[in-house]
Amino acid sequence: MIRVLVWNEYEHERVEEKFKKNYPDGIHGCIAEFLGAEEDIEVKCATLQDENCGISKEILEETDVLIWWGHMKHGDVPDEVAYMVRDAVLSGMGLIVLHSAHHSKPFKYLLGTSCNLTWRNGDKEILWVTEPSHPITQGIDRCIILEEEEMYGEPFVIPTPDKLLFISNFSGGEVFRSGCLYERGNGKIFYFRPGDENYKTYYNPEIQRVIKNAVRFIAPTYRNTVDCPHVRKITDEGDYVM
Amino acid sequence: MIRVLVWNEYEHERVEEKFKKNYPDGIHGCIAEFLGAEEDIEVKCATLQDENCGISKEILEETDVLIWWGHMKHGDVPDEVAYMVRDAVLSGMGLIVLHSAHHSKPFKYLLGTSCNLTWRNGDKEILWVTEPSHPITQGIDRCIILEEEEMYGEPFVIPTPDKLLFISNFSGGEVFRSGCLYERGNGKIFYFRPGDENYKTYYNPEIQRVIKNAVRFIAPTYRNTVDCPHVRKITDEGDYVM
Amino acid sequence: MIRVLVWNEYEHERVEEKFKKNYPDGIHGCIAEFLGAEEDIEVKCATLQDENCGISKEILEETDVLIWWGHMKHGDVPDEVAYMVRDAVLSGMGLIVLHSAHHSKPFKYLLGTSCNLTWRNGDKEILWVTEPSHPITQGIDRCIILEEEEMYGEPFVIPTPDKLLFISNFSGGEVFRSGCLYERGNGKIFYFRPGDENYKTYYNPEIQRVIKNAVRFIAPTYRNTVDCPHVRKITDEGDYVM
Amino acid sequence: MIRVLVWNEYEHERVEEKFKKNYPDGIHGCIAEFLGAEEDIEVKCATLQDENCGISKEILEETDVLIWWGHMKHGDVPDEVAYMVRDAVLSGMGLIVLHSAHHSKPFKYLLGTSCNLTWRNGDKEILWVTEPSHPITQGIDRCIILEEEEMYGEPFVIPTPDKLLFISNFSGGEVFRSGCLYERGNGKIFYFRPGDENYKTYYNPEIQRVIKNAVRFIAPTYRNTVDCPHVRKITDEGDYVM
Repeated sequence: MIRVLVWNEYEHERVEEKFKKNYPDGIHGCIAEFLGAEEDIEVKCATLQDENCGISKEILEETDVLIWWGHMKHGDVPDEVAYMVRDAVLSGMGLIVLHSAHHSKPFKYLLGTSCNLTWRNGDKEILWVTEPSHPITQGIDRCIILEEEEMYGEPFVIPTPDKLLFISNFSGGEVFRSGCLYERGNGKIFYFRPGDENYKTYYNPEIQRVIKNAVRFIAPTYRNTVDCPHVRKITDEGDYVM
Repeated sequence: MIRVLVWNEYEHERVEEKFKKNYPDGIHGCIAEFLGAEEDIEVKCATLQDENCGISKEILEETDVLIWWGHMKHGDVPDEVAYMVRDAVLSGMGLIVLHSAHHSKPFKYLLGTSCNLTWRNGDKEILWVTEPSHPITQGIDRCIILEEEEMYGEPFVIPTPDKLLFISNFSGGEVFRSGCLYERGNGKIFYFRPGDENYKTYYNPEIQRVIKNAVRFIAPTYRNTVDCPHVRKITDEGDYVM
Repeated sequence: MIRVLVWNEYEHERVEEKFKKNYPDGIHGCIAEFLGAEEDIEVKCATLQDENCGISKEILEETDVLIWWGHMKHGDVPDEVAYMVRDAVLSGMGLIVLHSAHHSKPFKYLLGTSCNLTWRNGDKEILWVTEPSHPITQGIDRCIILEEEEMYGEPFVIPTPDKLLFISNFSGGEVFRSGCLYERGNGKIFYFRPGDENYKTYYNPEIQRVIKNAVRFIAPTYRNTVDCPHVRKITDEGDYVM
Repeated sequence: MIRVLVWNEYEHERVEEKFKKNYPDGIHGCIAEFLGAEEDIEVKCATLQDENCGISKEILEETDVLIWWGHMKHGDVPDEVAYMVRDAVLSGMGLIVLHSAHHSKPFKYLLGTSCNLTWRNGDKEILWVTEPSHPITQGIDRCIILEEEEMYGEPFVIPTPDKLLFISNFSGGEVFRSGCLYERGNGKIFYFRPGDENYKTYYNPEIQRVIKNAVRFIAPTYRNTVDCPHVRKITDEGDYVM
């Protein structure tokens, strides 16, 4: 079983009626539902309203893949929580970062850049598969069409992705690197662009398929902290770690 | 002085009236003209009609940057010529590959993949800068707009570029990795998408600016063939190369 | 079942007594034996002495992972065979390239560079794991020690690997990128340095473990040729491929 | 003129006699001297003992390349200073990180990983050039030999470098990625391993050559903060930035 924790800021759709209509149980509720229906996936949720964001070292140790959605309240996540997430990823936990969480602390602390981008509301988005043989794009034809989504445009201030899986075309004329895969320490990170609170994107079966694929791809096979040991010579009786 | 050789297949605009109108002196003539106007650049041309394609080992040794345009007649370039170009790049010569030369032998032999893509005629193209601080994108604002160009779409079957400098949006809904930088051996390769024979793209000052920038960026500072020597131990009197 | 084809030049150990002692059934025989003992792996062999090298389009279509060992007779492999292998990789087949096959045609045609390196006989080699969480390095502690192997040294004229999994230290003072992973088209390529015919390296359980891991990691989940279609506008009734 | 700021923690060689003997004017003093002798380089210094570490936003704006050396007192550098350095790099300033500064805050905040490694004292180190045509390795033959240096070993917990320029062999049997180049935002970062306070490494002309080359390579041609603007459609009268 892959143990997934879906973390959501849960502000927009908790507070404002028009977003609540899109996601009555919160964005996390929607994601938890379609993931939980999979036989090999086990889901829990946590939100900003939970004590300490619902995150602790112990909880992260029992999490294979953490999914993160946030937008307005990135600053309310304490640095200690963000560092715990970062360290769990470096030890092997997978992290899926969705949409406006490009500006979340865990993502920015792991990538080191501003993760800035340009944006505008209300365009048709077409996400093109650039790597048709990658496990994350399996089951997707050449592209995914979203009739309406928020626009995110280049430049996207990120390190060059280890692998670029999707590029978006927006009807307003922009482009965006929408599916970005990174390896950091022992863990993998997948940034996936779609999912603004204004639209019902997470009900789209193809978007769900990508997220399910990503959960399976970035779940760790190995989990360990690589520390910084003082070592002995390898020639001293075959030992090399002090 | 940077010594540039502009190589052109020179079929379309030599033979067909409608293309000749766009480029009366050939695509190579147009490129040679705007490059030759630069004080630090010296230009020669060669075409498929020249003996042995106008390429020899000696000519390539006196070339800092080779620019390649081809489309219909890739197969008419002898393998030996393509291997000479490949080896010159591995030794340090820069190579700029334009538009339909994605299917040229030198490019395919250097990258190793099919370099296949999808295509369609007649779209508005917007090339977005993804790396605003790169020397090749200097002087370009956030994007270049081409009112009409041929469409190239993903997937583009290339190795992940070392650096991706431009992504195109096409009005028909597609995207494409339009500015791809590679390092191979001691040489650099820049693939730049625009420039179909149907359109007067190489007269566009921004397109010219990118090509001028690229010439300066990929001109070699170092040129040498790295061979495969049988070496001695480094401890034998400090020697390590036999 | 993962279908593996072990290809071996089979010259040294077929012809010369001292190499025959190391590998009485050929290097391919040794590799086939330890791979064939795995429940999820099915092995066949082919050698240079077989008709058309024992390679055909049909055979490659029934191969998930091709392992390649060669040294003296790279030139005797026909270009058509090498191109068949290249195209099978681009369509998704995995390729494991061992030791002196750095100069084999399939590897060089897929990478595009000379794949030159420096070399010397008879050193202790220590292969250090640089990516402890990668599936290919699982089960290996921090390093693999080979008391005697041929030395390969930098510079190794290859494209920057997509992922570098092992770096070797040689007692003579050199270093080498010994485990290099590439993705090309829909296929994966793993270069693994050890395995000179002078030494019994392929009997080493840790070396066997790496090769078994690599077979499982690069076996394709997806296999398809990405061609270069002329497409229609995506807006014409939702169609985009002509 | 390239404006360099050499920052040094300045603890070891200020306080302990045996290190003071190696670097009577501090490690920064030694580096400033050989850099300042270059006609195109202008050098200033700052240390941990200076007010606010001798760093301010204004000072960084007038710095093209910041060189950073630290070891025992990484924690004494305030987070605000480290963030200022990070943001200056993202805007285009070059950063050279030396030896034990692999654990400095600016480097770790920019890379996002732990930057852990293994270590041991007192080995012969041979740094091999992996990229002989790179501007940073110009003037260096195939390797640099340091008769005695501290040993750093893999795994080095860093993101895969954009370009790997040196790999070290240590006589004790280890290896290390010793010259690592990154691009982050508009800036470049070069990590260079040698330079323990126990040894007079920064007097070595080849080490000096690498540092001089690096200063010239990572000095910015472009400096600008890429922010996150709300944009208008590109079709509204050609405007796209609000």
